Amino acid sequence: MASELDRPRRNLRPDVALAARLFDELREKSLDGEGVTRDAYGAGERMAHSVVRREAEVLGLRVSTDPVGNLYMTLPGQDPNAPRILLGSHLDSVPNGGNFDGAAGVLAGLAVLAGFRQAGFTPGCDVTVMATRAEEAGAWFATSYPGSRGALGRLKAEELLIKRQDTGKSLADHMRQEGFDPDFAAAGEAVVTPLNTAAFVELHIEQGPVLDSERIPVAIVSGIPGSRRLRQGRVLGEYNHSGGTPRRYRRDAAIALAELAMALDEKWAGLEAQGHRLVCTFCTLATTEEAGFTKIPGEATFMLDVRSVDPASVDAIFSELHRKVPEIEVRRGVRFELGEETGSKASPMDAAIRAGLIASAGSLQISHLEMASGGGHDAAAFAAAGIPAAMIFVRNQNGSHNPHEAMRIEDFAAGCEVLGHWVANIASGQSGKTGIA
Amino acid sequence: MASELDRPRRNLRPDVALAARLFDELREKSLDGEGVTRDAYGAGERMAHSVVRREAEVLGLRVSTDPVGNLYMTLPGQDPNAPRILLGSHLDSVPNGGNFDGAAGVLAGLAVLAGFRQAGFTPGCDVTVMATRAEEAGAWFATSYPGSRGALGRLKAEELLIKRQDTGKSLADHMRQEGFDPDFAAAGEAVVTPLNTAAFVELHIEQGPVLDSERIPVAIVSGIPGSRRLRQGRVLGEYNHSGGTPRRYRRDAAIALAELAMALDEKWAGLEAQGHRLVCTFCTLATTEEAGFTKIPGEATFMLDVRSVDPASVDAIFSELHRKVPEIEVRRGVRFELGEETGSKASPMDAAIRAGLIASAGSLQISHLEMASGGGHDAAAFAAAGIPAAMIFVRNQNGSHNPHEAMRIEDFAAGCEVLGHWVANIASGQSGKTGIA
Repeated sequence: MASELDRPRRNLRPDVALAARLFDELREKSLDGEGVTRDAYGAGERMAHSVVRREAEVLGLRVSTDPVGNLYMTLPGQDPNAPRILLGSHLDSVPNGGNFDGAAGVLAGLAVLAGFRQAGFTPGCDVTVMATRAEEAGAWFATSYPGSRGALGRLKAEELLIKRQDTGKSLADHMRQEGFDPDFAAAGEAVVTPLNTAAFVELHIEQGPVLDSERIPVAIVSGIPGSRRLRQGRVLGEYNHSGGTPRRYRRDAAIALAELAMALDEKWAGLEAQGHRLVCTFCTLATTEEAGFTKIPGEATFMLDVRSVDPASVDAIFSELHRKVPEIEVRRGVRFELGEETGSKASPMDAAIRAGLIASAGSLQISHLEMASGGGHDAAAFAAAGIPAAMIFVRNQNGSHNPHEAMRIEDFAAGCEVLGHWVANIASGQSGKTGIA
Repeated sequence: MASELDRPRRNLRPDVALAARLFDELREKSLDGEGVTRDAYGAGERMAHSVVRREAEVLGLRVSTDPVGNLYMTLPGQDPNAPRILLGSHLDSVPNGGNFDGAAGVLAGLAVLAGFRQAGFTPGCDVTVMATRAEEAGAWFATSYPGSRGALGRLKAEELLIKRQDTGKSLADHMRQEGFDPDFAAAGEAVVTPLNTAAFVELHIEQGPVLDSERIPVAIVSGIPGSRRLRQGRVLGEYNHSGGTPRRYRRDAAIALAELAMALDEKWAGLEAQGHRLVCTFCTLATTEEAGFTKIPGEATFMLDVRSVDPASVDAIFSELHRKVPEIEVRRGVRFELGEETGSKASPMDAAIRAGLIASAGSLQISHLEMASGGGHDAAAFAAAGIPAAMIFVRNQNGSHNPHEAMRIEDFAAGCEVLGHWVANIASGQSGKTGIA
């Protein structure tokens, strides 16, 4: 079995040098001060798409775009009717961001297909590198994943009217300007469906400190977390003289908020001890401008962000919140206004693909761990559309969405090897059977 | 004994009607929108001093001012060489403040002396109503009690150079403009000394909610608290992505500060349960402007104000602070910068006078309690100069230092009765013996 599994590795090494060369070209062409800027549905993203399209054509891949501008670069398989495998990520960036966030997933796919080409390997099904559009939409348009959701038939017509924050022009206008057809998305048509696509696998830098701290190059992602959020929390008490107001007459909004924050922090620690995996953050927690020396704070505000792949973990924090708030209100004479709750659903990654990626990493003796994603990714949109989705994280340094974001090429190579090994095993040419349950 | 103690009450009732008339006149002459403004060493304070001086002259009291502008209105006693008893408070106010804060103590003294006059009672020693200057100096000049400390020879020369915040002119200039002699204070000379003064007793509105909540008209003050204060506290952590940074990699400044705040709040509750009396306030407690949604707070700031008549109570909070800070620093990966510590010494009120005032209240069947002051008062300056000092608090509504500050005239009358009864007993005319140990 081991020799069978190892076979692809010997013959099908990803062309990491090609990816390294493309990273350099992308950086050079999108430098913006210290970092890079590749604006969604704008000149920066257009440049990046044209660079990878050119390279795909050199590799002899079949190249196309869909009506909303996503780019598909396909190595045809033995059975053209078998559901394809998609490998991909996005090519846009936040303003003055890093070179690897997004591009790594596209170039990993090209490196894998180049390795297949060089080894003369023809997969059983089509394997397509998909470069999505506008994944960093949050930085440009106030919406999530308009590119991949456009391909999946899940972009709502009204979202096409959202204006890009720097240009003031709508998403639809930006699509048209780049030569695409927003009406396709508005009509809810899909080019990527569970019928024609067996899997979407996205390699991405981790964007967090875990792999670097643990000295492990890659991770298989268990899921993309869902969230429950309070962005406009307030605590109302009463301003009073800090000298003249004894403890039992106080209605101190700040200490009430500190008590809630500590209660949720302790709940979080307890949940972790029980094996839950979640994050719970008071992003802000503050007395207001009216506060000042010799006054008891009469008002405080907060933002709360709770995330987990497991909704039960998030709900456990909110249960504690709803249990503590009335108790603190009574004991401290304050009133909480929680404001509107927002949030998102969790996207668990496909169990079979995860198991396959872990088996590949093990077979290649690449040390790895399983972890949840912190941020959102295109893979969440595919999972939501019913397409089996998975992610490989690559160790990175200095966080992400900043010019200092870094990734070592040998870590990237390890991620590409896991990806290529898995694709080769799944699409091993046996009459189009992909091996995905 | 009871009939002996009750004697002064029958004959020596304070002239509360006189005080009520003067309250109205002072309010009318210092109205400033909703509240009153009597600026220290300015037109408002000058007006108030001239109103009470005129009334003292009508009453036939001996009137004088000292070189820094404090006003003395004396009912001469049988023994002109015996140490006098001072009754008093201040006549200035904060901008747009209340009518009773300060003036109540001066008018209570006048009401008591008017009652003595009307009853034909000559005390054993001189009894003097002292209207101090600029007790609300914090609102006008950045210094404390310059009037009373000027009389006590304890105002430092450099403090005379402090500029009034609205006029930009120095305290010395303002004294000169009002016809006084700042050089007297600069030389450290004293007109009020432990040799010539047996006691200073100040009646004042409570400025807090205790008496009103407890439905008790007056309190005998146990002491004026000292304080230890941090005005520029900071907690430094690290900004990180709230989604991508698991618990153990976080350096969350806000949750570290919340933990410190809760630890000190619990310590306070524990100290109270043991009988300590103190207040402990995080006047501000806040993430900074860099904080925002999806970020872990990398910085937080705070102001801490701890006060008690008993320095041991304040020190117990700061011991807990210094115990918790390094523990939280290690556990949460943050760094506290406590900044400069400021503070003031506590001024316990004189035990013998307190006992006498309590006996008077009991004798008059006026319900009362003992409590610490919240804010600072002129009485602290007298205590610091070695003069036995005490205070009577009168129930008030709506706090103080605001236009809604209120006091019921019957509560004021109760305070005046306690004050007058005590003075009459102490200065009972027996050859100048004041009865103060």
